[in-house]
Amino acid sequence: MEKLFVIKIGGNVVDDSTALNSFLQKFAAIDAFKILIHGGGKIATTIGKQMGLTPNYINGRRITDAATIDLVTMVYGGLINKQLVAALQSMHCNAIGLTGADANIIPAIKRPVTDIDYGFVGDIKHGEVGAEILQAFLDNDLVPVVAPLTHDGQGQMLNINADTIASFLAVVLSKQYDVRLIYCFEKKGVLENIEDDSSVIQLINKEKYQQLLDDKKLADGILPKIDNAFAAISNGVQEVLIGHADDLLQNITENTIGTLIKS
Amino acid sequence: MEKLFVIKIGGNVVDDSTALNSFLQKFAAIDAFKILIHGGGKIATTIGKQMGLTPNYINGRRITDAATIDLVTMVYGGLINKQLVAALQSMHCNAIGLTGADANIIPAIKRPVTDIDYGFVGDIKHGEVGAEILQAFLDNDLVPVVAPLTHDGQGQMLNINADTIASFLAVVLSKQYDVRLIYCFEKKGVLENIEDDSSVIQLINKEKYQQLLDDKKLADGILPKIDNAFAAISNGVQEVLIGHADDLLQNITENTIGTLIKS
Repeated sequence: MEKLFVIKIGGNVVDDSTALNSFLQKFAAIDAFKILIHGGGKIATTIGKQMGLTPNYINGRRITDAATIDLVTMVYGGLINKQLVAALQSMHCNAIGLTGADANIIPAIKRPVTDIDYGFVGDIKHGEVGAEILQAFLDNDLVPVVAPLTHDGQGQMLNINADTIASFLAVVLSKQYDVRLIYCFEKKGVLENIEDDSSVIQLINKEKYQQLLDDKKLADGILPKIDNAFAAISNGVQEVLIGHADDLLQNITENTIGTLIKS
Repeated sequence: MEKLFVIKIGGNVVDDSTALNSFLQKFAAIDAFKILIHGGGKIATTIGKQMGLTPNYINGRRITDAATIDLVTMVYGGLINKQLVAALQSMHCNAIGLTGADANIIPAIKRPVTDIDYGFVGDIKHGEVGAEILQAFLDNDLVPVVAPLTHDGQGQMLNINADTIASFLAVVLSKQYDVRLIYCFEKKGVLENIEDDSSVIQLINKEKYQQLLDDKKLADGILPKIDNAFAAISNGVQEVLIGHADDLLQNITENTIGTLIKS
């Protein structure tokens, strides 16, 4: 099977034009099938403030109300996504910007209301992700650039977590490709000691993960990432790498910097 | 050759949710290859005002400055484009939203500065439009929905007129398809008498066009549309239809309502 890199960058990279340009240069240079998933960044909040929108919180959780979904559809799906596409095109990388609504690549439903209504947030419909059309794009030498948005199939756009999209796309494409899923974030990897940036754990397998959980060594922020990683590993993805964008893309085909997650 | 409908709707349809929904229902029902190109609408101006942006005019002409290109990239490429895609998906039409930057379907340059600098406005590079990749999308049963934006190949997004995109896409695809180009606007067609909405001219050929020009019967607003139409006809497009969205899509395969432009 051919190699496919599914790479997610967070808002911290999107927000920093120097870091972003450096990342995109390395991404464009990867000589293999590849997909980029990007987070949102702070610019949506800035533009929301300029427009006089007030973020809506319930029990400390941000709610995606009608004004917010329009705002992020503009900013993530328009401004950020198209700026990434234009930048990659300038680096001779034939990028195509997508949300989950485009070509229906990520069918989803609005998250059911339980004790809390998160608003216009999507949960992916399992088994229905558009692997075939993504493969057709890759076969046409296109590089999908996916914004953290999708739709409910009934005309409504929905907000969705970029880590979750990356994990799902990696899984559905693992039948056709040898997929390496890469989460770029602000640290050099998963840290044994949160206070010590050099304490990167090189390998996490299931036993190590359980041990880290038992020892309560993992910060809240990293837990969902590792859960997404193990979900991917359990469903066909070869390996997941978590670390800093600068390190991870340096020697992408034989990378040992960052934290490797394998079953 | 198979039929391909290239259909452009203006901002007036985009701005009117009832008219838009009615249009999209008819568009989704067209049982043939099809591409939708959409204009901007007034919402960009509204959001620009909310953000405190002041439109920039030189000699009465709106200039696309840096703040404006970001604004329209958000609003046309994000909000409007994705809302159209989500709506069409809900009608079982497998829409994919694109700007000219995506998959590099519309290579362009920033308009050269002469007596006036229009700012970030694009002129299409002739002969380089991405016909092949559009054909691949159509062959995969996708329906391209194109926003009035493109890029300069050097990382900069550019504003571009939707009528111009429609004419160019119609031309480049006319080698592979029997193309009918349709301009939807607020009148029932080109009017013999601008004061009389019922004076629709049924057919304009080159002789009739010259006669209308000599008699100075054409309003300023319609002239570029007819020029775009004749540019398309001269370059392989079968016919161009100009009229009201409601009429044009009613019986699209054998339409006689509106103004037909043929060589």
